[in-house]
Amino acid sequence: MKHSVDLLTEAVVRTQNPTCMGLDTRVEYFPEGFFASEKEDAAWLEEASEAIFQYNKALIDGLCDILPAVKVQVAFYEMYGLPGMRAFLRTMQYAKRCGLMVIADVKRGDIGSTAEAYANAFLAGAPAGKGRVSAFETDFVTVNPYLGTDGIKPFTDACREHGKGIFVLVKTSNPSGGELQDLVCGGKPLYEHVAALVDGWGAGQVGESGYSAVGAVVGATYPEQGAALRKLLPHTYFLVPGYGAQGGSGASLAGTFGKKGGGAIVNASRSLLCAHKKQPGTHFVDAARSEALRMKADLLSAVGGSIG
Amino acid sequence: MKHSVDLLTEAVVRTQNPTCMGLDTRVEYFPEGFFASEKEDAAWLEEASEAIFQYNKALIDGLCDILPAVKVQVAFYEMYGLPGMRAFLRTMQYAKRCGLMVIADVKRGDIGSTAEAYANAFLAGAPAGKGRVSAFETDFVTVNPYLGTDGIKPFTDACREHGKGIFVLVKTSNPSGGELQDLVCGGKPLYEHVAALVDGWGAGQVGESGYSAVGAVVGATYPEQGAALRKLLPHTYFLVPGYGAQGGSGASLAGTFGKKGGGAIVNASRSLLCAHKKQPGTHFVDAARSEALRMKADLLSAVGGSIG
Repeated sequence: MKHSVDLLTEAVVRTQNPTCMGLDTRVEYFPEGFFASEKEDAAWLEEASEAIFQYNKALIDGLCDILPAVKVQVAFYEMYGLPGMRAFLRTMQYAKRCGLMVIADVKRGDIGSTAEAYANAFLAGAPAGKGRVSAFETDFVTVNPYLGTDGIKPFTDACREHGKGIFVLVKTSNPSGGELQDLVCGGKPLYEHVAALVDGWGAGQVGESGYSAVGAVVGATYPEQGAALRKLLPHTYFLVPGYGAQGGSGASLAGTFGKKGGGAIVNASRSLLCAHKKQPGTHFVDAARSEALRMKADLLSAVGGSIG
Repeated sequence: MKHSVDLLTEAVVRTQNPTCMGLDTRVEYFPEGFFASEKEDAAWLEEASEAIFQYNKALIDGLCDILPAVKVQVAFYEMYGLPGMRAFLRTMQYAKRCGLMVIADVKRGDIGSTAEAYANAFLAGAPAGKGRVSAFETDFVTVNPYLGTDGIKPFTDACREHGKGIFVLVKTSNPSGGELQDLVCGGKPLYEHVAALVDGWGAGQVGESGYSAVGAVVGATYPEQGAALRKLLPHTYFLVPGYGAQGGSGASLAGTFGKKGGGAIVNASRSLLCAHKKQPGTHFVDAARSEALRMKADLLSAVGGSIG
């Protein structure tokens, strides 16, 4: 069985593009005329959710040949209730059908028995009668480490049994991420303690790519810490949010990548989904594609021109 | 506008019961004969989700006169996909209609723009055309502090504008919670740093009950730390998981309560939902009710016999 992290590594090499498109899709992102509803309440949610799926579908269709992966942020779908969650599921399924690797950005984290239910929801399938049934099955989920090992183990068990992967929050991209993450405990910041746990959680599950099933979220907005974490965690795949709209750039990320430019995938959401706002008159898919190609070139130059 | 924390305080005084029933409902919990499906896959999920709602409904009907609140753990519903999420929503709506306060135990946490979407999902409603539409509206949500203030602010803004409340993970009930939470930084454990943040986040929103809209999750399994946190956080309402099946007892929690036995609500899930397994021949609702009354007496004796 190939593990998600090996498949992701292959997809990045194939496309020569360490980018994932963050489908944090919101109606405010749509170009004029894409969506207008006169409905109210539940009917509005239905129509808006359908439009969000259609927007995602168009972007996936238009960019899937140049991208290895998408990341789908569940919050923007939960906000629209059950129709939103249906759009979340359809988006992940459609991306999968188009050959993309899929990261469900859900940042779940709870005590062991509850974490097992989350692992069932996203990675393992739920026990159902004689078999298992998939709820929101995906290749990777993001998880929160605050509850420690017993809250992570159900996810790593699911990774082992079902060939999946997780990304654990280590150093997040937001301005106040450091309030807790940078607190120094026993001579090193909290996020390095988390990094050490991540290394241990993944130790038994290093794939043929050289990376383990337990990855780390490392924000593009803190490139020095990213480079330091890369040295600490040679076998950990990094999911790097915060490029583009949040401020990260390709050159600053050189140290975040591993050997041969591998080991990291950089997420961009607003800069792709809203690219049309900076390219008046251009269709939103074409605008996203040209921005994705610009970003690909920017990241490739940071890793010396090629990956793998 | 009454805030959720004031309404919860009133409900606890009215029922003289600082307990919430944790609806972490799973098919394994059902008594024999309650649910059997020959269906497979999606149809099984539909039937199991309907059974879970019916189980919850029966428990709510049978215990709502003696309980102030329920806590609904979303993981066990997400596991069953869209039918599961429908059961989650129906359970919260039904509990609300029966006069119970509702805590959605979702432990969400993300960067600011994403946290706003979660706050919309659970507390504020989502912008929808000219108004706002509720997705999974509830009185309280649980949130994770790992991303710091900008990940919490959208929730506290929603609390202020919509009279809602949150419970921030401070010291969790699980065995490995201490791996990160107990790390000592600057002379005190990480969870006390989180406690100080919680105090600040709630400072402007102390209601007539004397408690703020920003509560804390403090596990029953660490009663000494609970008592220490109570002294540090006189205006913070505590949500206390881990009673019963996880090991906490009433007497040990005396120090976790505030003045006049207020300021804390203790969650029990398995000990109520599976009470029938220890009371053979008793209907599951009657078994849960008698266990809830035993637990009420246990907690009341810990606070000196009455609350408020």
